[in-house]
Amino acid sequence: MVYAVDKPSQVPLVVLSGGGGGARLAAALSKCTAQRPVIVVTNIGDDFEHLGLLICPDTDSVLYATSGKLDRDRGWGREGESWQVLDAIQGMAGPSWFQLGDKDLALHLLRAEQLRKGCDLAGVTQVLSERLDVPEGMTVIPATEQSVRTRVVTEEGELAFQEYFVGRRCEPALRDVVYEGIGDASPSPSLLAALDACVDRPIDVVLGPSNPFLSLGPILGIPGMLSELRGRARRVVAVSPIIGGRALKGPAAKIMTELGLPASAPGWTQWLAKRYPGFVDTWVWDDADRGLVATLPDSYDVRVTATVMSEPGIGEGLADWLLEVCSVAP
Amino acid sequence: MVYAVDKPSQVPLVVLSGGGGGARLAAALSKCTAQRPVIVVTNIGDDFEHLGLLICPDTDSVLYATSGKLDRDRGWGREGESWQVLDAIQGMAGPSWFQLGDKDLALHLLRAEQLRKGCDLAGVTQVLSERLDVPEGMTVIPATEQSVRTRVVTEEGELAFQEYFVGRRCEPALRDVVYEGIGDASPSPSLLAALDACVDRPIDVVLGPSNPFLSLGPILGIPGMLSELRGRARRVVAVSPIIGGRALKGPAAKIMTELGLPASAPGWTQWLAKRYPGFVDTWVWDDADRGLVATLPDSYDVRVTATVMSEPGIGEGLADWLLEVCSVAP
Repeated sequence: MVYAVDKPSQVPLVVLSGGGGGARLAAALSKCTAQRPVIVVTNIGDDFEHLGLLICPDTDSVLYATSGKLDRDRGWGREGESWQVLDAIQGMAGPSWFQLGDKDLALHLLRAEQLRKGCDLAGVTQVLSERLDVPEGMTVIPATEQSVRTRVVTEEGELAFQEYFVGRRCEPALRDVVYEGIGDASPSPSLLAALDACVDRPIDVVLGPSNPFLSLGPILGIPGMLSELRGRARRVVAVSPIIGGRALKGPAAKIMTELGLPASAPGWTQWLAKRYPGFVDTWVWDDADRGLVATLPDSYDVRVTATVMSEPGIGEGLADWLLEVCSVAP
Repeated sequence: MVYAVDKPSQVPLVVLSGGGGGARLAAALSKCTAQRPVIVVTNIGDDFEHLGLLICPDTDSVLYATSGKLDRDRGWGREGESWQVLDAIQGMAGPSWFQLGDKDLALHLLRAEQLRKGCDLAGVTQVLSERLDVPEGMTVIPATEQSVRTRVVTEEGELAFQEYFVGRRCEPALRDVVYEGIGDASPSPSLLAALDACVDRPIDVVLGPSNPFLSLGPILGIPGMLSELRGRARRVVAVSPIIGGRALKGPAAKIMTELGLPASAPGWTQWLAKRYPGFVDTWVWDDADRGLVATLPDSYDVRVTATVMSEPGIGEGLADWLLEVCSVAP
């Protein structure tokens, strides 16, 4: 699969996404593909096998969100979802710990069918994008073809991601995160081909407001990923998932605290800057944290805007604002 | 899995079943397991892979019917079925030619899970029987562990069974039926173990009112099956699927005509007697065909009773009547 660049004058936007925040941002940007083609690189660390089917929660969230099919209230899964199969599995004492919706299951069955046909993960995702009517100009690519599985080391021992996230609802205090298999992984060839197609023009990279440990870590930790992105990027922008000291959803703030980091926009900024030195150019915080900008050295290019995308119109506003920020080189 | 004989004084009943008629008879007999333990041997010729899942239509019909979960109006699938996943698959341009219900799909997912765990087909069927609450004393065993796939040779060429049955609604005229793989198949070891457990007592065998070409053929054609059954049987009873020159459901009469056989109870009797010489002791026809009994030589032990099990109470009556017939040696 090669990323088609229709309008050579446009600088493509590459969005790194995991979880609900990234998916919402991708959805907002999917309205802007006439202005800027968008490549969404999705987190694969949450992927797992269930009932013999490969489930890719973060990739699927982006597919559902960008095709207008995400359940916006729940923030995951498909809208108008039903649970007939899960009920029947439960009725037969089968494994029902994972909330598998009927529409969602249909997608997993089609993914499995494409994989059996020999399609790679990027190819399958392309097929599913087409079947779901993801807008043209929006390309969704899982970060790698290799298996990377997030495992969390907690005070109660090591757990697989879904065990921790769904089974234990993120309750056990976290001590470390391990990305199993990441040493042998490499950036998706389809992603590199898409980036190569932009070789004459640099790209802009946006890190979605996603959990830095559970969502962005498995992407940025893939050997070569940082340099491939940074080497081609005009600007790298990171949107904070921490607003007013809390994560809108998910355990980002809880985990930062458990790891001894200040759960705040500045805390997030400084941790990311230290973890990935020289990677991010521009830091985006929510309006709520405007008062904290002065607490950071001037060397940080911090911008402030409305980022709470669960509120109406905010996602679209943030998308336009990001395009504006990215319209000039840093 | 070893067939447990609780009451050694009882002569077990072995029912050969495929399609709706066999399933209805098995369901009626499932009410009588206190009097006679029942082993249902199911047709595997219709089994096929769909969306990566092994689907066993005839085995499942028996599981649903004996556990009181069959949709009696449709005659197949589960009652109270819904079609959410199929709708979603269709909405994503996926393969939707096979009417895959949500509850049914749940069973296929559990079957696949058990197969991945290394369970054989008889073992999986035992697990599913328990999960569905098939009555105690009723053991459902697919005829073989090997792959036997019914293919039909039609005037339009050779077709896989589901292609012919679902895809083409049995329209193309049939010239021959082939049971792919049957030469390498052998009777299910679980079936033989169940029969061995009855070694001191003979069994009675009932051929359900099932299509002789598409349902009973793939069972009786398994090398060794006829002799294993006949060698242990006190009495072999065959219930006619042809009533008043027609099949209640399905293409049995149409196929007989296409193969140049008279589509009638006597035609069915004489074909079966010629095809499996010395196998059947007793022929059961519906009341509607009473007038035709005299057309056969006296050497045929033909009995007549009510067999239209879609009518209320008839199945139970037929079950009691069969137990009565089988209560004395021929």
